[in-house]
Amino acid sequence: MMEHCRQTAETLIEALPYIRTWSGKTVVMKYGGNAMVDENLKRSVAQDIVLLRYVGINVVLVHGGGPMISSMMDRLGLEPKFVGGLRVTDEATMEVAQMVLVGLINQELVSLINHCGAKAVGISGKDADLLRAEKIQHPDGDLGFVGRVTSIDSTVINSLTAAGHVVVVSSIGVGEQGESYNINADTAAGELAGALNAEKLITLSDVRGIFRDIDDEDSLISRLDLDEARALMQSDIISKGMIPKLESCIQALDKGVRRAHMIDGRIPHSILMELFTDHGIGTMIDGRPVDD
Amino acid sequence: MMEHCRQTAETLIEALPYIRTWSGKTVVMKYGGNAMVDENLKRSVAQDIVLLRYVGINVVLVHGGGPMISSMMDRLGLEPKFVGGLRVTDEATMEVAQMVLVGLINQELVSLINHCGAKAVGISGKDADLLRAEKIQHPDGDLGFVGRVTSIDSTVINSLTAAGHVVVVSSIGVGEQGESYNINADTAAGELAGALNAEKLITLSDVRGIFRDIDDEDSLISRLDLDEARALMQSDIISKGMIPKLESCIQALDKGVRRAHMIDGRIPHSILMELFTDHGIGTMIDGRPVDD
Amino acid sequence: MMEHCRQTAETLIEALPYIRTWSGKTVVMKYGGNAMVDENLKRSVAQDIVLLRYVGINVVLVHGGGPMISSMMDRLGLEPKFVGGLRVTDEATMEVAQMVLVGLINQELVSLINHCGAKAVGISGKDADLLRAEKIQHPDGDLGFVGRVTSIDSTVINSLTAAGHVVVVSSIGVGEQGESYNINADTAAGELAGALNAEKLITLSDVRGIFRDIDDEDSLISRLDLDEARALMQSDIISKGMIPKLESCIQALDKGVRRAHMIDGRIPHSILMELFTDHGIGTMIDGRPVDD
Amino acid sequence: MMEHCRQTAETLIEALPYIRTWSGKTVVMKYGGNAMVDENLKRSVAQDIVLLRYVGINVVLVHGGGPMISSMMDRLGLEPKFVGGLRVTDEATMEVAQMVLVGLINQELVSLINHCGAKAVGISGKDADLLRAEKIQHPDGDLGFVGRVTSIDSTVINSLTAAGHVVVVSSIGVGEQGESYNINADTAAGELAGALNAEKLITLSDVRGIFRDIDDEDSLISRLDLDEARALMQSDIISKGMIPKLESCIQALDKGVRRAHMIDGRIPHSILMELFTDHGIGTMIDGRPVDD
Amino acid sequence: MMEHCRQTAETLIEALPYIRTWSGKTVVMKYGGNAMVDENLKRSVAQDIVLLRYVGINVVLVHGGGPMISSMMDRLGLEPKFVGGLRVTDEATMEVAQMVLVGLINQELVSLINHCGAKAVGISGKDADLLRAEKIQHPDGDLGFVGRVTSIDSTVINSLTAAGHVVVVSSIGVGEQGESYNINADTAAGELAGALNAEKLITLSDVRGIFRDIDDEDSLISRLDLDEARALMQSDIISKGMIPKLESCIQALDKGVRRAHMIDGRIPHSILMELFTDHGIGTMIDGRPVDD
Amino acid sequence: MMEHCRQTAETLIEALPYIRTWSGKTVVMKYGGNAMVDENLKRSVAQDIVLLRYVGINVVLVHGGGPMISSMMDRLGLEPKFVGGLRVTDEATMEVAQMVLVGLINQELVSLINHCGAKAVGISGKDADLLRAEKIQHPDGDLGFVGRVTSIDSTVINSLTAAGHVVVVSSIGVGEQGESYNINADTAAGELAGALNAEKLITLSDVRGIFRDIDDEDSLISRLDLDEARALMQSDIISKGMIPKLESCIQALDKGVRRAHMIDGRIPHSILMELFTDHGIGTMIDGRPVDD
Repeated sequence: MMEHCRQTAETLIEALPYIRTWSGKTVVMKYGGNAMVDENLKRSVAQDIVLLRYVGINVVLVHGGGPMISSMMDRLGLEPKFVGGLRVTDEATMEVAQMVLVGLINQELVSLINHCGAKAVGISGKDADLLRAEKIQHPDGDLGFVGRVTSIDSTVINSLTAAGHVVVVSSIGVGEQGESYNINADTAAGELAGALNAEKLITLSDVRGIFRDIDDEDSLISRLDLDEARALMQSDIISKGMIPKLESCIQALDKGVRRAHMIDGRIPHSILMELFTDHGIGTMIDGRPVDD
Repeated sequence: MMEHCRQTAETLIEALPYIRTWSGKTVVMKYGGNAMVDENLKRSVAQDIVLLRYVGINVVLVHGGGPMISSMMDRLGLEPKFVGGLRVTDEATMEVAQMVLVGLINQELVSLINHCGAKAVGISGKDADLLRAEKIQHPDGDLGFVGRVTSIDSTVINSLTAAGHVVVVSSIGVGEQGESYNINADTAAGELAGALNAEKLITLSDVRGIFRDIDDEDSLISRLDLDEARALMQSDIISKGMIPKLESCIQALDKGVRRAHMIDGRIPHSILMELFTDHGIGTMIDGRPVDD
Repeated sequence: MMEHCRQTAETLIEALPYIRTWSGKTVVMKYGGNAMVDENLKRSVAQDIVLLRYVGINVVLVHGGGPMISSMMDRLGLEPKFVGGLRVTDEATMEVAQMVLVGLINQELVSLINHCGAKAVGISGKDADLLRAEKIQHPDGDLGFVGRVTSIDSTVINSLTAAGHVVVVSSIGVGEQGESYNINADTAAGELAGALNAEKLITLSDVRGIFRDIDDEDSLISRLDLDEARALMQSDIISKGMIPKLESCIQALDKGVRRAHMIDGRIPHSILMELFTDHGIGTMIDGRPVDD
Repeated sequence: MMEHCRQTAETLIEALPYIRTWSGKTVVMKYGGNAMVDENLKRSVAQDIVLLRYVGINVVLVHGGGPMISSMMDRLGLEPKFVGGLRVTDEATMEVAQMVLVGLINQELVSLINHCGAKAVGISGKDADLLRAEKIQHPDGDLGFVGRVTSIDSTVINSLTAAGHVVVVSSIGVGEQGESYNINADTAAGELAGALNAEKLITLSDVRGIFRDIDDEDSLISRLDLDEARALMQSDIISKGMIPKLESCIQALDKGVRRAHMIDGRIPHSILMELFTDHGIGTMIDGRPVDD
Repeated sequence: MMEHCRQTAETLIEALPYIRTWSGKTVVMKYGGNAMVDENLKRSVAQDIVLLRYVGINVVLVHGGGPMISSMMDRLGLEPKFVGGLRVTDEATMEVAQMVLVGLINQELVSLINHCGAKAVGISGKDADLLRAEKIQHPDGDLGFVGRVTSIDSTVINSLTAAGHVVVVSSIGVGEQGESYNINADTAAGELAGALNAEKLITLSDVRGIFRDIDDEDSLISRLDLDEARALMQSDIISKGMIPKLESCIQALDKGVRRAHMIDGRIPHSILMELFTDHGIGTMIDGRPVDD
Repeated sequence: MMEHCRQTAETLIEALPYIRTWSGKTVVMKYGGNAMVDENLKRSVAQDIVLLRYVGINVVLVHGGGPMISSMMDRLGLEPKFVGGLRVTDEATMEVAQMVLVGLINQELVSLINHCGAKAVGISGKDADLLRAEKIQHPDGDLGFVGRVTSIDSTVINSLTAAGHVVVVSSIGVGEQGESYNINADTAAGELAGALNAEKLITLSDVRGIFRDIDDEDSLISRLDLDEARALMQSDIISKGMIPKLESCIQALDKGVRRAHMIDGRIPHSILMELFTDHGIGTMIDGRPVDD
């Protein structure tokens, strides 16, 4: 027992240099729906976030929720429609998406985080006009209420983080007429990280990171620079699912975010491991050349 | 045209004494689902709220949404259950209620208000543990996740109103384990008005106020004091639907709120008429004896 | 009665977009002595100002008072002197001007505004060295204590408006030796509007605005741009009395004020009509080309 | 020369214990019209005040001006009226008083103080409703606009002193209808000292203080306590002119002011001598028994 | 490696509930000279303190230094003097004590803490008159400059902790004439904990805590309440060296400090073990009955 | 007596223009060990500093202490070592220097200043990493712990002066490993004056200033400009002891300090004479050409 206490103390001391580094900084996280696979893991993410808050980090969590939206649509008997292989967000779909994202997933995350000891507040991009958006025009047809962020008014986030709150954001945008738009959560997180001048963007998904060879478990790329990341976007080794994630990382780094991380949200406490130990566990992209 | 301008100016001047009275005060409103009957009326409520904000009033809007919850349950094939004539909120029902209240109705109100020119932010009682709640024990059986407010931490509302935001609140409470509770919106509004030391509690519903004789359109009670209101609760002239509304008014007045109003939300700009003209349109209950 | 209330509410809502536009902005007004013709009109101006204050506008009112100064000089048996057709402000005249402007007119306006519900504070350009001035050298002879503003220290105005006060300014300047100078009130208002980075300069006088043909009641110019205003200064259609007013407008617009208005202060609530309705009633000059 | 410098330094050091004592405190001064006898003396008072400001004292200067009002009335051909031996302030007299006090004397003091290096702001009791007043009812007849302070709203003074301004106050009060009242300046100063929780009330007049024997130059009372001051009020050794001054001192001390001083404003730098040297030059009344 | 990272994360999460508990609280520590035995241990204490600072705890460290003072006196050829068995602090001794405590030990601790990543500032009780003191009168003779705290002005500590600094305090007091007094460091720490309304007082010495039987290693008392602590002071099982420590704990608890801890500063990271794990390692005294 | 009071008041008024000039400015002083010759003079310096603080000047006092260090080394039997004629600061010497400077001299100055009525706080360059330093490499050999300032983090000084404290600084620097460096106090004062954007740097030593002819008492240079000062550095009329003082003045002026003064600290109240009278007593160097 006493030995255990001693180890705890030593571990805390080992983490100290990292705590020093991140204290006072803003970290934006994207938490993908596919990574929300079981209750224990969600709780582990919530605990990590509360710890970040206690060591002085401003945390903004942007969540997705694709699988839960699909399942709710199914229960409501709504048929998915496609244009050129892309899913269409018609009015009924938009309503379900907003209901599930804002009403269920966001609130569940808020509740989990608060239960671990912080004071989280959930908002959507519609609150205080956080994410102004416009319709994406697609060459193959009308995608409905799928939008792109046109401007960000981050004052509501700043006043909530200044008051010590963790902020949980549903990636819904608001159009000129007050209509809702479905915004890709990776993109929203990248845009927010840029607008908030964040130190870090962390993408929690259900893959371990970027692999040189998708069939080789050992080919995980631990670290790359912005040029290499851009080159990767043009290559064919990057999997389709990773493209929006990698793109949002590049976008955030272009806007001044220092580092972007892609890590596996299914590994318990992967956030803490990435931030507070020497050995990162996913793929990290530096915002400036590696040798700076 | 010129004449119209002149009248506008004169009207503004007539409203000046009222503006002076309310400026800097907090007003809590309950907006009932039955009063949200058409788009124009909802827009009229939103405009009223934005005007209140601009003349310096802190506005907290608590909304209901019974009819929309019922309709969504119907679409999902969920059968309502009853205990002793009361509807039971089982886990599936709670999920639908939260989804509809927080994800749809709250966001729609936020969007409407923002479109009229304010910066509204929507929260639920789960955000920052605003409304802590516990299960209501009912003698006739288990009502499921129907809760009662046990304590209020209004700091998140105070920091949002201080930053100039209108706050829209869904009346969901949070239990000890982070579970959601369905809180009666009238009660939540009354509790919040007390906790925020509000000047006024305004209940917007689909009835004109309290009548001496429910069958006599001309018997509307314009004004009564707290003792008369308490006597009314014991009488048989008060309709069943008005009981929780009147109860929440009395509760708020007991906690120091100065006045409570019950007005018909279906009358355009009924809020402004009640606040900014001599002739109130519903029933007003004074927190202190009428002659003070 | 009920109908009247309904109209009041509708009018307030019509004014909302204007309130939104001006809230938080600074408006400098010049109130000419010739426009202070009767008690009711002065009260109407005071009410307008209080309303502006309540909807969040910072109001600075610069007043004139020529007729009252003349009348007091007459009572004191002081003979006006002239140089090249211009009135000379000798020491005795300066004393009377200061006494009447600061001691009577300013205090009367303060009292009227406070009586309508705001907290006005009256100052002169000598208080806290607000308006530093120097003697105007005139080719035709010594005009005495007629001065020109050399620099403005607006900190006292900023701290009074920040504390919620309406500020009433008598246009007296202070020289290097502490001596008083008579400053043209139109010019002082224009200079202050520039120094305070005001949104608007409003000149309330006893004419309706600028006319294309001074003999044609219907030739009022509703709106012109800065270039047109400059051209007008060179033309012969502008009346002598309007020259300093138009000049101070141009001067203020040159310093970044967005719009200048010349309106008839004898029309009840002309300020509100100009600010809060679609149909302005005087002449408005845009600070930037009309098509921006 | 060098010797002179050395003495200067030594004098400053001798003053240090006094500076330490008064720094951060509020001092209210009454400057009587009879003491404003020549330009050099007024400048000496202004210099003293500026020095107080620089060593961290909040200075509020209440001025009188009887002789200048009489002289202006004379010039305007206004006949003084009396009731029971007391002068009546009819409407015309009130206008002259306000004009002279607010427009001339206040502004002259402001200008003098600013010329010595501070930033003074002049206000009257009408500004921001500083001195609310009501008519004094006199048994012998109507005294016109002679008033008594009913309440003080000192917020405007507090915000001006907090911003580093010296505040010069004309003792005009404001009635319920916005009408002006002539307030005895000694009384106003005493009331303000109480309301501002001042450390000191200093009355600068043209007498050296209170004498035990009015015909004996050497019988000046240097120091007395509150009980002795009260006894003096009942005695017949106190001269008529000193009664309101002594009364306002007692009143201020009753409201918690620590000390009241009556000194001769015609002695150069009498304020500094009283505050910054061991040897006071007038009469000082302690708010608490001398031996505390 | 990866396994090690995982354990780090888990440890941090285990510590979370403790971090939550102490965040924002003030902890006063006494670090005894006997516990400053080697460089590694001092560094371990410094690291612990920096970690406390990063998780939001205000840390005030009061240090002793007896052994170093004795050794310096020895080098300077100063003979210790005694009165009734107690060491006398004559002027020469006081000078050495101050020189060693303030000039060497305090600065060394500041430097160590800063090197671990915080911003420590060292002060003595003489700075800003933090610890006012008077001479202790001893029945057996003159102890010289041995003092007792008469009053504490903790404003300098409050402004330094508010600015994020760790504060290191040398327990020197200042007398009425500016003379220095040697204050027992345990007592000073207890007094400061009371004055700062600290959550905890932690005494780091070279013993493990209080033992029921001083010869029985296994008789360490883990926890006792205030009454038990008081009883212990009267008993004979408490060793002489522990008396001032236990006394200062009782004193602090009497002034409202919640808990006092006596722990062995020679155990690495004993502070973290005591604060951030379940298993305290020394003796803890509760400020209120154990069962509250 | 009365005459004396009058003179005091007049002297204060004469000082007023100087007080006005310096109020709110920052003054850095270097107080050399050779100037600390007797108790009365030290008290005189302390009084001057307290007076500066009361008239609103931020005072930072950097002290030296060479003679006291030498004397303590002597008492400890430490032999001075030299390299190329320069004294070497080995580890033992550094320890003595720090002990004497921080533990004795700094604390004595703090105590003296506080006794005169201010609230001084003593710090060294190690506190909050105020003066980061590195070893000076000397061509003739290892000088030990003699350092040069590499960077200044003046936040701790700013927060202490903002809280009204006089700050006393011992010129010890801190290296990368936390080791102490002996920094020349003249240089440290010059660097601090630059970093704090001070108005003035005042060097108090035991010489009267710079002389054109060192053997001619009457050849004191009262005033020179930056170019002349630079020329002087190259000339042979400047004495060896004055070189570092003159150098630090030039350095400070280069960094934007307005004026540097070299005055004789043994003349009572020399600081006040230099700041608050017309006739400076030492040598003043203007930061910009004399004719600006």
